[in-house]
Amino acid sequence: MLKKRIPNIAISIGDFNGIGPEIILKSLSEIDLKKSIPVIIAPKTIIEYYCELFSPQPEFHFITDPENKKEGKVNVLHLKDDQLKITPGIQSAESGKAAMLSIEKSIDLCLMKRADAMVTAPISKEAVNLAGYDIPGHTEFLAAQTNAEHVLMMLVNDNLRVALVTAHVPIKEVADHISANLIKTKVQILADSLRNDFGIERPKIAVLGLNPHAGDGGVIGMEEIEIIDPVIKEIRGTQNQFAIHGPFPADGFFGRKLHTKHDAILAMYHDQGLAPFKLLSFGKGVNFTAGLPIIRTSPDHGTAFDIAGKGIADPSSFKEAYNLAVKLAKK
Amino acid sequence: MLKKRIPNIAISIGDFNGIGPEIILKSLSEIDLKKSIPVIIAPKTIIEYYCELFSPQPEFHFITDPENKKEGKVNVLHLKDDQLKITPGIQSAESGKAAMLSIEKSIDLCLMKRADAMVTAPISKEAVNLAGYDIPGHTEFLAAQTNAEHVLMMLVNDNLRVALVTAHVPIKEVADHISANLIKTKVQILADSLRNDFGIERPKIAVLGLNPHAGDGGVIGMEEIEIIDPVIKEIRGTQNQFAIHGPFPADGFFGRKLHTKHDAILAMYHDQGLAPFKLLSFGKGVNFTAGLPIIRTSPDHGTAFDIAGKGIADPSSFKEAYNLAVKLAKK
Repeated sequence: MLKKRIPNIAISIGDFNGIGPEIILKSLSEIDLKKSIPVIIAPKTIIEYYCELFSPQPEFHFITDPENKKEGKVNVLHLKDDQLKITPGIQSAESGKAAMLSIEKSIDLCLMKRADAMVTAPISKEAVNLAGYDIPGHTEFLAAQTNAEHVLMMLVNDNLRVALVTAHVPIKEVADHISANLIKTKVQILADSLRNDFGIERPKIAVLGLNPHAGDGGVIGMEEIEIIDPVIKEIRGTQNQFAIHGPFPADGFFGRKLHTKHDAILAMYHDQGLAPFKLLSFGKGVNFTAGLPIIRTSPDHGTAFDIAGKGIADPSSFKEAYNLAVKLAKK
Repeated sequence: MLKKRIPNIAISIGDFNGIGPEIILKSLSEIDLKKSIPVIIAPKTIIEYYCELFSPQPEFHFITDPENKKEGKVNVLHLKDDQLKITPGIQSAESGKAAMLSIEKSIDLCLMKRADAMVTAPISKEAVNLAGYDIPGHTEFLAAQTNAEHVLMMLVNDNLRVALVTAHVPIKEVADHISANLIKTKVQILADSLRNDFGIERPKIAVLGLNPHAGDGGVIGMEEIEIIDPVIKEIRGTQNQFAIHGPFPADGFFGRKLHTKHDAILAMYHDQGLAPFKLLSFGKGVNFTAGLPIIRTSPDHGTAFDIAGKGIADPSSFKEAYNLAVKLAKK
């Protein structure tokens, strides 16, 4: 009888001066190590430093070759370092560089099928910039590294799923990014993911408007009339695999609890979707990148430098991200 | 012994094809008519039409001169009409025009001290446009009509208060509106209102960032570094009457429940502040315009044409708006 393969989950360390190491260690102390094999990719000194700060600690297995990982342990794939300076709460070029090396290695493992999914701890785009990387966000970097032409940032918590047409874009540029083609692409990735990843046969998708009151008939912006409404009608008319409604005014949509009547919500930009999502998900939200050739999840919060190194970070979201990665990897 | 004066509250009818008349009638059926004198400003036919549709009905007193209003009754100040066509759910130039005439009359009554406060039912900017008015929103119109140089749109529910730097502005124009002067003005109106209207001696104000992740150190927009952060520091350094913190990333702010630790939140734009507010206020939010020479409140929702005339509209927000107007008028 064939033994069922246990999913291998690569974990990128994130910014080591943020809460990443703490939430990883806390989460891995609580998971069932018989059901997945976690591999943290990080300089050994980081793990040692944070293990001294926090307890309880999981049982580690330090390796330099991913082939040597062991079941039942928390594997740590050592990343070369040159006497790293660890300064919880204060970002640096060093922490930015280590974060990026860890992500790159995690992607490699996934692309080479040595890992079945990856979970990423939060990075600081400022620190990453200090280290010489010019990236707008995790999601965009993953798309570029895996040659994914189009991806979709999606936040998940139980039956609440919020996806974004634009993600890490300054507000002054958001409207310029909104086009019928972009919305069509995002809706298609979302619908495919709802059907294939989340097993919803005929999903119901709600699309939010761009402007206050969804433009209020053109009085507060024309994008709804010129772009969003026509493309929704076009999509509705050309397929029968999912239902699509909108554009809804964002405030009224959530105020009237319409999110409970849809399988996913497509917001036009970051804060429009994520502020409501974070209020509703109570710290247990997971960021899932749909459209990649690999499986990637992450917690839905940032580095939280203000509480780094204090032992008070809540690991709930990371743990949920890990569990969702395991679940999706099993498919 | 002097008899304590009961506040007179003018009520503008809003778009009569929306849920305005319904929520007004429902609310006034439930309030204590010994504690305030409501005066609805509307064509008599509108009141009669909706009274036939809905019950219970309050006791009306129809007048054509505001001086003839009666205590203990729901006064209706008749607005001239020429055989209005009432079409619940379908907006028209007629409903837009009646809405504006009612607002103008309400403002007059307040400015002439014949009313102590006004409560406005929702209008449709599209219908108002059809009627030939070019206004971005209620709030902006009130400011212009009362010669208020600067006003602040504020949403209130118990101890949650969300104010907006920009209100009915298309997303593509929001960033251009954000300036140090505008933020300073809005913060000052907000602080004054918290102290004077809401009686908070030394209020704590939180300011949200404009961009995703509050710009993440300049990687996703520069407004936080160039405008918002410096002006917050400047305001903090020049007065001692209130505390001010930020700029906070909007999603993380609400996700970490920081709204419970501040007396008010200043959001940079409409949906950033209002989508979270409406999730938190459970349909009981009140829109309050600070900085006007008159007192004005309104419900925090729109015309809801989709449910107009069906008798299922929730009057909670209008009732709260009426009660807040009475409370503020007594000061």
